[in-house]
Amino acid sequence: MAEAAATEAPELPDLDAIRSAQSRIAPHVHRTPVLRSQSLDDEVGAELFFKAENMQRTGAFKARGASNAVFSLSDDQARGGVVTHSSGNHGAALAYAARRRGIPAFVVMPENAARVKQENVRRFGATIRFCAPTLEARESTRIALQRETGATLVHPFDDPHVIAGQGTAALELLDDTPGLDVVIAPVGGGGLLSGTSIAVKSRAPAMRVMGAEPANADDAARSFLSGRVESLPPKSTIADGLRTTLSPRTLGAIRAHVHAIGTASEAGIVRAMLMTWERMKIVVEPSAAVPLAALLEGTLDVRGMRVGIILSGGNVDLDRLPWQS
Amino acid sequence: MAEAAATEAPELPDLDAIRSAQSRIAPHVHRTPVLRSQSLDDEVGAELFFKAENMQRTGAFKARGASNAVFSLSDDQARGGVVTHSSGNHGAALAYAARRRGIPAFVVMPENAARVKQENVRRFGATIRFCAPTLEARESTRIALQRETGATLVHPFDDPHVIAGQGTAALELLDDTPGLDVVIAPVGGGGLLSGTSIAVKSRAPAMRVMGAEPANADDAARSFLSGRVESLPPKSTIADGLRTTLSPRTLGAIRAHVHAIGTASEAGIVRAMLMTWERMKIVVEPSAAVPLAALLEGTLDVRGMRVGIILSGGNVDLDRLPWQS
Repeated sequence: MAEAAATEAPELPDLDAIRSAQSRIAPHVHRTPVLRSQSLDDEVGAELFFKAENMQRTGAFKARGASNAVFSLSDDQARGGVVTHSSGNHGAALAYAARRRGIPAFVVMPENAARVKQENVRRFGATIRFCAPTLEARESTRIALQRETGATLVHPFDDPHVIAGQGTAALELLDDTPGLDVVIAPVGGGGLLSGTSIAVKSRAPAMRVMGAEPANADDAARSFLSGRVESLPPKSTIADGLRTTLSPRTLGAIRAHVHAIGTASEAGIVRAMLMTWERMKIVVEPSAAVPLAALLEGTLDVRGMRVGIILSGGNVDLDRLPWQS
Repeated sequence: MAEAAATEAPELPDLDAIRSAQSRIAPHVHRTPVLRSQSLDDEVGAELFFKAENMQRTGAFKARGASNAVFSLSDDQARGGVVTHSSGNHGAALAYAARRRGIPAFVVMPENAARVKQENVRRFGATIRFCAPTLEARESTRIALQRETGATLVHPFDDPHVIAGQGTAALELLDDTPGLDVVIAPVGGGGLLSGTSIAVKSRAPAMRVMGAEPANADDAARSFLSGRVESLPPKSTIADGLRTTLSPRTLGAIRAHVHAIGTASEAGIVRAMLMTWERMKIVVEPSAAVPLAALLEGTLDVRGMRVGIILSGGNVDLDRLPWQS
């Protein structure tokens, strides 16, 4: 994979593609608000502008990329529906987008997937196909499904239409918040950070873009330095949506446009998540709290700056919160 | 009390007083956003516009009334500070407003007040004076404090400046949301509902104003019908901020301007609160969920209307949520 990245440049969207995505998905997504908190500004020593994608349709920014991919399909392609293997926010987002277009969606999930994740996908009318909890079973099940149904794969992040869709959140943030110095997004597979970095650097070359990820899943920070797609450490993280490696495509965008990638400890993520709930009165998932956690732990330095932060999502199990003993 | 209301009309603010309050408190409060939820619209069968006072300074609309009262004091009055007996959101709001003006605040609290409520007040630098958990002890402690310090009483709701301040949330809601048919606010002592009803009916006489309260604290609904300040039923409610009787002053405003008061069951309040967290991704306290609960239980009828709802606050103990077993 790393060699492929070095020898051929995978397709990435440009600003025009992100602008096209913006008009394509406008009927299907919310223009989410930009929220502020004096007390978090004081904690960090910067002016923070939070793009509240936790309030996005399906509860996460993923509705943007999935909608752009689904509504970019030709009628012929669309007829067979769409398929993916993400059991998290992308699965629900793809199910949502497919229902908006009136086509079937199939989501491949391991048999042991949490019930709440299954419900999130079923609630938008998608069909779940279960498989053994291995990478091989997931791939073979997905390929068999595509053969059976003619469904088109919509990858959670390694797809130019998905990346363009995710970039629309940053365009809105820039329009609504003049004079930002830096924009920070969490990074898992890198779809959001890629789209954000292309949008920001094309619109405002002097503005910085930063990524943030759990120290327990610091593959993007290492890939960013080495220039190769590095693998995940064998650790778990509460921000499980970010436990994904980059692709050569997303690494390409990130190496070209991103200034720094900071990490956050598990305790720091929980603390930042709780602070966001307490001070801002909003429900965010652990992944969404990772940029603030990186700022509070000082692995990214933005003192005195005007900082845009993309709050990626708000899908959490409200019966059991990470700070509760 | 009821007879006093019949023989002399207690002072109430008019629209001009609410507009004055708006400019007076502007430097000290947030202009909170108006949030929407397609899925809650579908549940209720109406278009809902939520004024997010959970995101207000101090986490509740109470910052408005307290700020207006504190900044309406003459320098002479202000010198001795302010005092109140609310241990809930008003106590914290008064502490906040006093700190903004640079004057002392004293809050009388029962010895058994929850630690989280004590912290909310102390965090803004107020002095707590504990008393025995009886009405008599509370009053005598407050009066002694006033004698000692020269502090001015700022009542949680029975005060024209406080009522004018609370009415500013409705002014903003009307400015930001054209064409509303009705505005709904929760009702405890009636400060918010009084201010809301005066603001709305003065600006748009054809628009309706409704109140909502727990069935377990249905004194306002009964007072509204009888025309007298009725007492509380001997029951507890999870929306403990609403467990307060009206005053002749607030009853006067409500009888003059309010169209209906609906009630909600305890289970309905918890359900509406959870739905608000899940669907809107915001943290609201039980009291703030009471209007939605009344709509879902059908004690208020707004089908097909454009409905403004004041989400009164977001101060909850995140270690222990009411839907958790």
